[in-house]
Amino acid sequence: MWVKFKKRLAKLSPVQIITGYYFAAVSISTILLSLPVATKSGVQWTFIDALFTAVSAVSVTGLSVVNTVDTFSITGIFFLMFILQFGGIGIMSLGTFFWLLLRKKIGLKERQLIMTDQNQTQLSGSVKLLIELIKIFLIIEFIGAIVLGIHFLSYYPDWREAFLHGLFLSISSTTNAGFDITGLSMIPYHGDYFIQFVSILLLTLGAIGFPVLIEVKDFLSSRDRTYKFRFSLFTKITSVTFMSLVVAGTVLIILLEFKGFFVDKSWHETFFYSLFMSSNTRSGGLATMNVSDFSEPTLLVMSGMMFIGASPSSVGGGIRTTTFAVMVLFLWNYTRGRKTIKVFKREIYEDDIQKATAVMMGGIVLCTVSTFILSITEQLSLTDILFEVCSAFGSVGLSTGVTPDLSNIGKFVIMVLMFIGRVGITSFLLILGRREKTDNYHYPKEKIIVG
Amino acid sequence: MWVKFKKRLAKLSPVQIITGYYFAAVSISTILLSLPVATKSGVQWTFIDALFTAVSAVSVTGLSVVNTVDTFSITGIFFLMFILQFGGIGIMSLGTFFWLLLRKKIGLKERQLIMTDQNQTQLSGSVKLLIELIKIFLIIEFIGAIVLGIHFLSYYPDWREAFLHGLFLSISSTTNAGFDITGLSMIPYHGDYFIQFVSILLLTLGAIGFPVLIEVKDFLSSRDRTYKFRFSLFTKITSVTFMSLVVAGTVLIILLEFKGFFVDKSWHETFFYSLFMSSNTRSGGLATMNVSDFSEPTLLVMSGMMFIGASPSSVGGGIRTTTFAVMVLFLWNYTRGRKTIKVFKREIYEDDIQKATAVMMGGIVLCTVSTFILSITEQLSLTDILFEVCSAFGSVGLSTGVTPDLSNIGKFVIMVLMFIGRVGITSFLLILGRREKTDNYHYPKEKIIVG
Ligand SMILES: [K+]
Ligand SMILES: [K+]
Repeated sequence: MWVKFKKRLAKLSPVQIITGYYFAAVSISTILLSLPVATKSGVQWTFIDALFTAVSAVSVTGLSVVNTVDTFSITGIFFLMFILQFGGIGIMSLGTFFWLLLRKKIGLKERQLIMTDQNQTQLSGSVKLLIELIKIFLIIEFIGAIVLGIHFLSYYPDWREAFLHGLFLSISSTTNAGFDITGLSMIPYHGDYFIQFVSILLLTLGAIGFPVLIEVKDFLSSRDRTYKFRFSLFTKITSVTFMSLVVAGTVLIILLEFKGFFVDKSWHETFFYSLFMSSNTRSGGLATMNVSDFSEPTLLVMSGMMFIGASPSSVGGGIRTTTFAVMVLFLWNYTRGRKTIKVFKREIYEDDIQKATAVMMGGIVLCTVSTFILSITEQLSLTDILFEVCSAFGSVGLSTGVTPDLSNIGKFVIMVLMFIGRVGITSFLLILGRREKTDNYHYPKEKIIVG
Repeated sequence: MWVKFKKRLAKLSPVQIITGYYFAAVSISTILLSLPVATKSGVQWTFIDALFTAVSAVSVTGLSVVNTVDTFSITGIFFLMFILQFGGIGIMSLGTFFWLLLRKKIGLKERQLIMTDQNQTQLSGSVKLLIELIKIFLIIEFIGAIVLGIHFLSYYPDWREAFLHGLFLSISSTTNAGFDITGLSMIPYHGDYFIQFVSILLLTLGAIGFPVLIEVKDFLSSRDRTYKFRFSLFTKITSVTFMSLVVAGTVLIILLEFKGFFVDKSWHETFFYSLFMSSNTRSGGLATMNVSDFSEPTLLVMSGMMFIGASPSSVGGGIRTTTFAVMVLFLWNYTRGRKTIKVFKREIYEDDIQKATAVMMGGIVLCTVSTFILSITEQLSLTDILFEVCSAFGSVGLSTGVTPDLSNIGKFVIMVLMFIGRVGITSFLLILGRREKTDNYHYPKEKIIVG
């Protein structure tokens, strides 16, 4: 029996394993959160609400049809923290693990071409490395919990309450879950820049991508060696894109709300509100203010930012930073009349450009169709719908407040978006049965007029 | 002086000539429409409104800040009809002419590979052919005017009025201009299926693409010959896409408005309303009903349809049918794991896929940024803004009625969209200075994680 199971497991593709893990986690989470011990006495909730919360937690999105603190008991809150770990770090680890295996395979081929690529050799022992990194992740969360817990002593007289808040915010930030147990997200701490700074640090570590963390670790431990360490093209592109998006978001929010939401705020309030909200459109989903207080143009900018999302192989979602970067570089180079994309003294593979195009178009089709369906089923403004759709697809979890009022069809659409956004369009296409095919036959090519 | 001018003219690129033609036509049109003789006595209008009308007429879009029949004298209406001819047929002819030249050049290279391609030989004498086709276009308009004029005798007691209406509707339909002199677009004829049928026929002839008309003409005149005529891949793709979009639009409008706008309508009213409105989202811009009476989901579907637009080398705009078709085929083949796009027993060139990607992304960026700007400058719902933006970009001219209320910045954005939509993203990129460059140097390629 067990041997048979192991044999079948070995036959599964990486994507099937990740999807299986996701659905198993959602099933167990739904059951856990439906246990009477998980909820406060007197709380009644429907199966679809429990399922929605489970999907939202496993995909570390944070969109919620119920108020966490009013619904869950302390036990339920601990259940939730466990689910976030398995959803956030678990899926990311599996994804990164398979990417490392793939990279090693590619590495052998590539090394014959690229002689400068020295850090490939350090990627041996993927499993060992990964376990070590999960440890590091847990240590980050632990340190975050201690630091925030001590700081929260000034908010909550009971030290157990303070450290519960510290632990929950640390986990919610690092896994980019976006859940809160204040009942008001980060609004109670809108004037506390220390908490915001720690939170932004933690959620950036989670959303910047596991491979980036690996390389930074390698870089730090290779300083004393003789050869020059080279960061991978992936790390360079995703880090620069990630930071650029945060900066651009901050600047745009300031400019758009200068005479709006920020009209009666000081310069440092303006800056921290914008920085925190911009950082959280990557994947975090925490908020220091009521999102619906922003004007429509700001909500549109944030929707676009959430659609892009975080780095691949991270706790985030969306089309991912690299997809966005490759499409921007493609458009830029195409309008310049260049046939190749050169960046950081490397060239992008044709295959990766094709993939980015497919992911970009897939994401646009998915979000457009979802917005269209919700425009039929919900009585909401197009801006609210678009914001909710992008938030779900980007595993972000920010909302103008419409999530609890969604119809059942609406909730189902958002759940599908949270799933696809989290596992990624590429994986989703592989689930749908994408297999590389070789062309056995060809037709003559013929020019057509385009655009 | 004249020799010098001719020398400079010969140095200009096709795109520069088309753009020059466009701006010259707009300038002359603005002056013509600003003449006192063009407007009814007592009508006062600003420069920006005259400019807007000129841009709308030259780009045969039909968005209007004023009511044509209340503003223009009979002379002004004749001015307008002339402008529509130069905007619609003129720009299309120039575009097709340069495409024919290009095709002949490519044809020589391609014929060594494609032995079946026989109709290339018939494309000699481009200029002669083109003049002949402009004649055919004018004949179509003339026949349309006669047929409609006779029919209009039952509407308008004065035969001159009837034939003026016939002529105007025929020109407005064939050039896909979307202007009207009823003051209410085609609403007065919402029960007259004959007029609607003739109008749909005329606007399809204008929007299906000049090369298609050429090939159909070749096909008809080659029937008695011995060799088998083969339609080009372009003609097959654009015709199938064009018709599919019209059918899909009709079905979707019926389904979405079944319990809405059509709730008190008979089956034939429902069908004709849907067919006419769907046909007019290609490029026409005429309407048998008040667009704002449709529900939000219908307006979103129509926005998407207008964004796609009509065939290349036609009187229409948007990203064009072939761009849309190539992107759909690309996504479909990519998800199937196929590396090439096979369609109608031909393969699409890599270059054309790249071009389609650039045009698609360019269109999305353009319309997204425009929608964003209008969301700042206008006090309108996002749906109204999106509809107006797609209508302008697609050279369609349908509107929920917000055009006259646009701010000056809003009018400027819409004018830019009408221009770019009409000349096409590809030409627009060429205007921006796109030149094919050869790569003199290369960097090593490196894999990155995407999506
Ligand atoms: K989140
Ligand atoms: K039009």
